[in-house]
Amino acid sequence: MSTTYRVTGMTCGGCARAVTQAITEAAPAATVDVDLDRQTVTVEGTDEALIKVAIDAAGFGFEGRV
Amino acid sequence: MSTTYRVTGMTCGGCARAVTQAITEAAPAATVDVDLDRQTVTVEGTDEALIKVAIDAAGFGFEGRV
Repeated sequence: MSTTYRVTGMTCGGCARAVTQAITEAAPAATVDVDLDRQTVTVEGTDEALIKVAIDAAGFGFEGRV
Repeated sequence: MSTTYRVTGMTCGGCARAVTQAITEAAPAATVDVDLDRQTVTVEGTDEALIKVAIDAAGFGFEGRV
């Protein structure tokens, strides 16, 4: 089951990669899909608390589920 | 003493923030200055090995001293 979250501050492919790396570093089994246009990140395979910490620590804004 | 490194893949302010956060999360005492035009990061207060690990883990390319 995947969940989609609103994440602010991602403006280019480098940001998308940084968010993806932050999540998969914390949760190696997770799959991550970033949608820059919608400013969303869809994640499968880990829990919301960990995703929030990883995204905040990477300098982006975790704003909860879409 | 600060040292300047070449870091590839930073293309916007979100990338600059992500790199800064990655380094300061690993080394809270470090000061970090990102120059997007030159693709460089100038760091004071931590060692090169830690900076390399933090930048690589954040999804950017550490290419050593300028």
